[in-house]
Amino acid sequence: MKIGPGITHCVAMATFGAVFAAGTASAAERTRARDLGIPFAGRTGPLNAITDVAGVEVGYTTLVEGDGALQVGKGPVRTGVTAILPRGRKGVSGVFGAYAVGNGNGEMTGTIWIEESGIVGTPICITNTHSVGVVRDAVIDWMIRNGGTEQLWGLPVVAETWDGYLNDLNGFHVKPQHVFGALDGARGGPIAEGNVGGGTGMHTFEFKGGTGTSSRLVRIKDVGDYTVGVLVQSNFGRRWQLQVAGVPVGREWPEDAPFTQQAGVANELGSIIVVVATDAPLLPTQLKRIAHRSAMGIARTGGTAGNGSGDIFLAFSTANAAAASADRGLQQVSFVPNDQLDGMFEATVLAVEEAIVNAMVAAHTMTGIDGNTLAAIDHARLQQILARYNRLEKR
Amino acid sequence: MKIGPGITHCVAMATFGAVFAAGTASAAERTRARDLGIPFAGRTGPLNAITDVAGVEVGYTTLVEGDGALQVGKGPVRTGVTAILPRGRKGVSGVFGAYAVGNGNGEMTGTIWIEESGIVGTPICITNTHSVGVVRDAVIDWMIRNGGTEQLWGLPVVAETWDGYLNDLNGFHVKPQHVFGALDGARGGPIAEGNVGGGTGMHTFEFKGGTGTSSRLVRIKDVGDYTVGVLVQSNFGRRWQLQVAGVPVGREWPEDAPFTQQAGVANELGSIIVVVATDAPLLPTQLKRIAHRSAMGIARTGGTAGNGSGDIFLAFSTANAAAASADRGLQQVSFVPNDQLDGMFEATVLAVEEAIVNAMVAAHTMTGIDGNTLAAIDHARLQQILARYNRLEKR
Amino acid sequence: MKIGPGITHCVAMATFGAVFAAGTASAAERTRARDLGIPFAGRTGPLNAITDVAGVEVGYTTLVEGDGALQVGKGPVRTGVTAILPRGRKGVSGVFGAYAVGNGNGEMTGTIWIEESGIVGTPICITNTHSVGVVRDAVIDWMIRNGGTEQLWGLPVVAETWDGYLNDLNGFHVKPQHVFGALDGARGGPIAEGNVGGGTGMHTFEFKGGTGTSSRLVRIKDVGDYTVGVLVQSNFGRRWQLQVAGVPVGREWPEDAPFTQQAGVANELGSIIVVVATDAPLLPTQLKRIAHRSAMGIARTGGTAGNGSGDIFLAFSTANAAAASADRGLQQVSFVPNDQLDGMFEATVLAVEEAIVNAMVAAHTMTGIDGNTLAAIDHARLQQILARYNRLEKR
Amino acid sequence: MKIGPGITHCVAMATFGAVFAAGTASAAERTRARDLGIPFAGRTGPLNAITDVAGVEVGYTTLVEGDGALQVGKGPVRTGVTAILPRGRKGVSGVFGAYAVGNGNGEMTGTIWIEESGIVGTPICITNTHSVGVVRDAVIDWMIRNGGTEQLWGLPVVAETWDGYLNDLNGFHVKPQHVFGALDGARGGPIAEGNVGGGTGMHTFEFKGGTGTSSRLVRIKDVGDYTVGVLVQSNFGRRWQLQVAGVPVGREWPEDAPFTQQAGVANELGSIIVVVATDAPLLPTQLKRIAHRSAMGIARTGGTAGNGSGDIFLAFSTANAAAASADRGLQQVSFVPNDQLDGMFEATVLAVEEAIVNAMVAAHTMTGIDGNTLAAIDHARLQQILARYNRLEKR
Repeated sequence: MKIGPGITHCVAMATFGAVFAAGTASAAERTRARDLGIPFAGRTGPLNAITDVAGVEVGYTTLVEGDGALQVGKGPVRTGVTAILPRGRKGVSGVFGAYAVGNGNGEMTGTIWIEESGIVGTPICITNTHSVGVVRDAVIDWMIRNGGTEQLWGLPVVAETWDGYLNDLNGFHVKPQHVFGALDGARGGPIAEGNVGGGTGMHTFEFKGGTGTSSRLVRIKDVGDYTVGVLVQSNFGRRWQLQVAGVPVGREWPEDAPFTQQAGVANELGSIIVVVATDAPLLPTQLKRIAHRSAMGIARTGGTAGNGSGDIFLAFSTANAAAASADRGLQQVSFVPNDQLDGMFEATVLAVEEAIVNAMVAAHTMTGIDGNTLAAIDHARLQQILARYNRLEKR
Repeated sequence: MKIGPGITHCVAMATFGAVFAAGTASAAERTRARDLGIPFAGRTGPLNAITDVAGVEVGYTTLVEGDGALQVGKGPVRTGVTAILPRGRKGVSGVFGAYAVGNGNGEMTGTIWIEESGIVGTPICITNTHSVGVVRDAVIDWMIRNGGTEQLWGLPVVAETWDGYLNDLNGFHVKPQHVFGALDGARGGPIAEGNVGGGTGMHTFEFKGGTGTSSRLVRIKDVGDYTVGVLVQSNFGRRWQLQVAGVPVGREWPEDAPFTQQAGVANELGSIIVVVATDAPLLPTQLKRIAHRSAMGIARTGGTAGNGSGDIFLAFSTANAAAASADRGLQQVSFVPNDQLDGMFEATVLAVEEAIVNAMVAAHTMTGIDGNTLAAIDHARLQQILARYNRLEKR
Repeated sequence: MKIGPGITHCVAMATFGAVFAAGTASAAERTRARDLGIPFAGRTGPLNAITDVAGVEVGYTTLVEGDGALQVGKGPVRTGVTAILPRGRKGVSGVFGAYAVGNGNGEMTGTIWIEESGIVGTPICITNTHSVGVVRDAVIDWMIRNGGTEQLWGLPVVAETWDGYLNDLNGFHVKPQHVFGALDGARGGPIAEGNVGGGTGMHTFEFKGGTGTSSRLVRIKDVGDYTVGVLVQSNFGRRWQLQVAGVPVGREWPEDAPFTQQAGVANELGSIIVVVATDAPLLPTQLKRIAHRSAMGIARTGGTAGNGSGDIFLAFSTANAAAASADRGLQQVSFVPNDQLDGMFEATVLAVEEAIVNAMVAAHTMTGIDGNTLAAIDHARLQQILARYNRLEKR
Repeated sequence: MKIGPGITHCVAMATFGAVFAAGTASAAERTRARDLGIPFAGRTGPLNAITDVAGVEVGYTTLVEGDGALQVGKGPVRTGVTAILPRGRKGVSGVFGAYAVGNGNGEMTGTIWIEESGIVGTPICITNTHSVGVVRDAVIDWMIRNGGTEQLWGLPVVAETWDGYLNDLNGFHVKPQHVFGALDGARGGPIAEGNVGGGTGMHTFEFKGGTGTSSRLVRIKDVGDYTVGVLVQSNFGRRWQLQVAGVPVGREWPEDAPFTQQAGVANELGSIIVVVATDAPLLPTQLKRIAHRSAMGIARTGGTAGNGSGDIFLAFSTANAAAASADRGLQQVSFVPNDQLDGMFEATVLAVEEAIVNAMVAAHTMTGIDGNTLAAIDHARLQQILARYNRLEKR
């Protein structure tokens, strides 16, 4: 499987297993931001990925099919589904969780119940804007089949960003089996970035964007060491805004910005979904604080949350097995006191920043409907700009 | 078409047109709460319905098929779709709107964008819990086909309540064509109540519930006369809680309460969706206040918003054509000052209360999966109880 | 000390101790709603008061001074301060807590931090609208002096309702020593209702209102028995709206409604503050749900949350001593699962309803500035009306 | 008046007039971030201040008195009051407004009513944490005396940050006359920055902080040109986090960071209040979006909203004179459509960033209680660091 420049007729609908194998391979092959010498603050986990949080599993279905002129319903197709399972496929109970909104021009289903209950009780999926519905109902179907007979109802968490610049969005190409594939194939370990899963057809600062991940280790005094892991589906930003490690890359690289230079695209066309996982025992109110910090990580890359952007953030904690236990009776949980959370907040901000840059660095140039093309950010030129601002680390 | 006690093999999937015709007829035939002499405060509009608000159109698809033992995927089917179009099928632009939550164990998609933008830009649909997704994507499909070529994306508003006591909920019987039927068949005028549309398989205070509607006229000094119209999909409440016109009906009628008397059903199994429409020019912040009052109408019937209940409320104003205009440049709108809204608040509370009772009074006894039966509230007995408390009006 | 009809020159500023003694006596002497045969659902605690929740202490300073024409800065004075200490005067650490708003035309300081932290870390005071500031700073002063040297800052919780119909509100008669008096005098046991503390000059449904309290016992299956206690400072409602035990008392008693019959008072002039205490172990997200239900209790009395009303609700749990522990390191807490909270919700709704009626029944007629008078609801007439609707219980 | 290093016995309580005169002079004399060659994106208004928004008036009372060891109640005093009047001292009616919270460990009174009504109806004051109350009640007093006899009640907007490192915070030195001074002395034109008003005793990234301001001009296509003005009371941040124009200044300047190097100060001790004014006609829902972006401006300076930080943001629009008109009847307002707001969002983010740096650059070193000293950031060293990262502009 080859996803990249010059793509013509490549991978049709891939079930997760296949894609993940490829994805794993890619994860090894693909370049990440730190590989280029881009400096980020903080100490990462071993994978520098959301899967550094034990138990978290991620699966992708990547749909890349056809090319040429748009024929609604036929393609070209550049989309997919990302699935995140907080306690993995074996985990039957929910986790404490919370959501926050940076700018609400987007969808994340299930949030009304998360706000009320403090619990994320279903897998989390991310897809394109017009496939939220099919993914949502398919998650219920999958839960019923995997959860035994007691499942009375489900309110799945499904978010989206818009891939209509490359993808036949109104062709509704995501089907239930693609959702099942992403869910069934989810696992821990290294995960692919860039043009995979729900992030397949996405852009970032008018370069090719997509899926990115990062993590941070946090030492909390008198408590212990914890991990914060982030996964983003990054699809936002105008070129002139881009900052990498504080360097005004976008101002140095104004040319070849497809939306800015294209008449009539005055506004943000995109969005970013951020999922933050941690193994630190936090209460729902505290996870809301974590989720809320995602906007600060976006700001560090230059984003300003345009009107058209759906910047929606979800945070959950894999600690506290009793959080959403089906057992009756009092439940016992533990939590880190509020006044020891500063490190968690900083970790979240930094990991979101890095995950966005990782999404850009890992992505490959992609051509979609009507020959629309989003170029991957050129690594060498990016390094040159950073060097000019004394911000390129020796590797 | 006959929907009522003794139902065995009756109406299969009905497209909206057919159902609406029936529905209109039913609206004339069916009993409403005031017909029984139940007293409510306030002055209603001519139809005592959400469609008293000019421009608002409502359509239903009602799905009633099969009987006997549950066979997931085959039936029996007792469900449907309700569609509300704030500016009717011809209305291309959105309305100012806002949502509020009484208890969030439910779903209403599109709310993150409503909260951010203050605008409801799509039709509003209500269905069962496990069909929110299919309805959501189908609304996008319908909007694309009806809205011309400029539609870049859509974030439809789709809400739900749970009908799994009567309906083969996990059979996913709602299909896109049912959504199109409800949308295409929407119109103004009198509308059906009880076992119709999304409300088909619902319960209320352990009687048969469903769809209900009511309206109030509000005179605002120095401003003018406006209408508040409410539609509910009512599916909540435990028997002992029921109050009608302040009378403790539930305490007088403890028997034949299927959930209370059935082992293991300790909790609320239902929900209520409230949609409030008005022609009064109100800003989004003001509509949020209106939406929020819905909980007080529910409280007047005895509801306490149990943990399992998704009490989700949407309010919109059909005034201010410029609210969501696609025109660029400054938009002009008008609004009623905050300190003249008391009448609107009271109207909302009273209309929600009456719409719930209307849903119960209009509903017919229904038998669904595995012979589960929800009995309609007996009109004569209800009147006797009210009379005993000196709360039955002479007609 | 005499507070009641015919009051001319009575009690000057009373420090808490004196008032509390009187208050305790009054608690024994004064009539409560159940004494009149008014029926309420649910089982109360032994005191039917917020102080049924172990550890909760309440103190009042009641200021009644002068009569005749208003002279701003001189009086007449009809106001006070109510203090609620979640863990009593000895309790050094905070409690899990949350707030909710029914209608926000009012003030409760400290809520931004409660929303963020999930913790109520200070005493809770209630006073008149224009004395929130002096009370707030005085609470900090009191905390510094009582809390040792480690106190870096405080964000006290101070709420208010408007007593300008009877009280020289713009005379700023509440002073720091009145706050200290209420705090220092706080204790458990029976507490006074009606014209006491912050509730001294308040109205309810155009009768004399003030402070009221009630409680409910809740049995949670597989968990245990808990108490929900409520204290209200009740100052809202238009006469025609009043319902007592579901009976339309206001419609039967339209005369002598001072605001409705006074030209120019079209709107709500009041507010209601609700404080809900429980010993059930609940997380902040769960306490928010409890707080939110207060509006449903208000609705049962006929209130519709008018534009001018500050309906602000606070809920806290005295369980979980570790909730706001100053100890570093992981904290352990327990909680009742969400799906066992229905009884807590119902208890809250019912106790709020009863506390409001208790405030009215306990209040005495009061004359304030410019001879303005608020008549207490006449017990005998109230009973007659309830009897006519078959809602008067035999005692 | 001299405020700076070596301060011993300098300015006692200054009424606003005096301070403002000094302030105006200072505004001319004092250095601003752009004067140093620090690059910021966007085009500023003529004053690069919140007062670029026509009608907005700002007043300060600065209290600097005593030195040496802390004697609670005696000093040293390093505090003050900042007053912002959206329509100036002559403006009788309110403005559309909204607030947002980045981290809620702080206070802003009046926000519950702003959230409900969409209106800021009082002056906005900022002071120290323990003087919020006195300032709040004094604003009511001032409004009564300035607003005529119709004022029934007031819910003032008063915010705070913590100055206890330099100031005798528990001495409660702010008195009503200081509030009146700030309000009465408010005016348009150039305004002082640094150690003035409520910002007198504040820190930022462990340098001396305080009051800062900035503005941006925004051209909205097909609508017109508008101004966004920002005022911050900046009192947050740990040294290692500081970024100026994207340059990691804090990592280059780890020494002399008083809190990081002082045992036991693990956490954020501060806060930041942001007030955003604009003359663009925006609805309350839109102003909430503006307010919300403040966090992204903070993030650009390196802040991560620590647990101890009260990051509270208020935005208002001076357009739409009818927003809070006391006239009865329908009110007419205009607004910029949501999809033309991207420039406003970006302007807000950029102006907040610059206002924070302005607060630091303008501040002078200050010594307060017990000899505690906060050093102003050294301009020359800051420039050297920026030059090393190729981020110093030629002037």
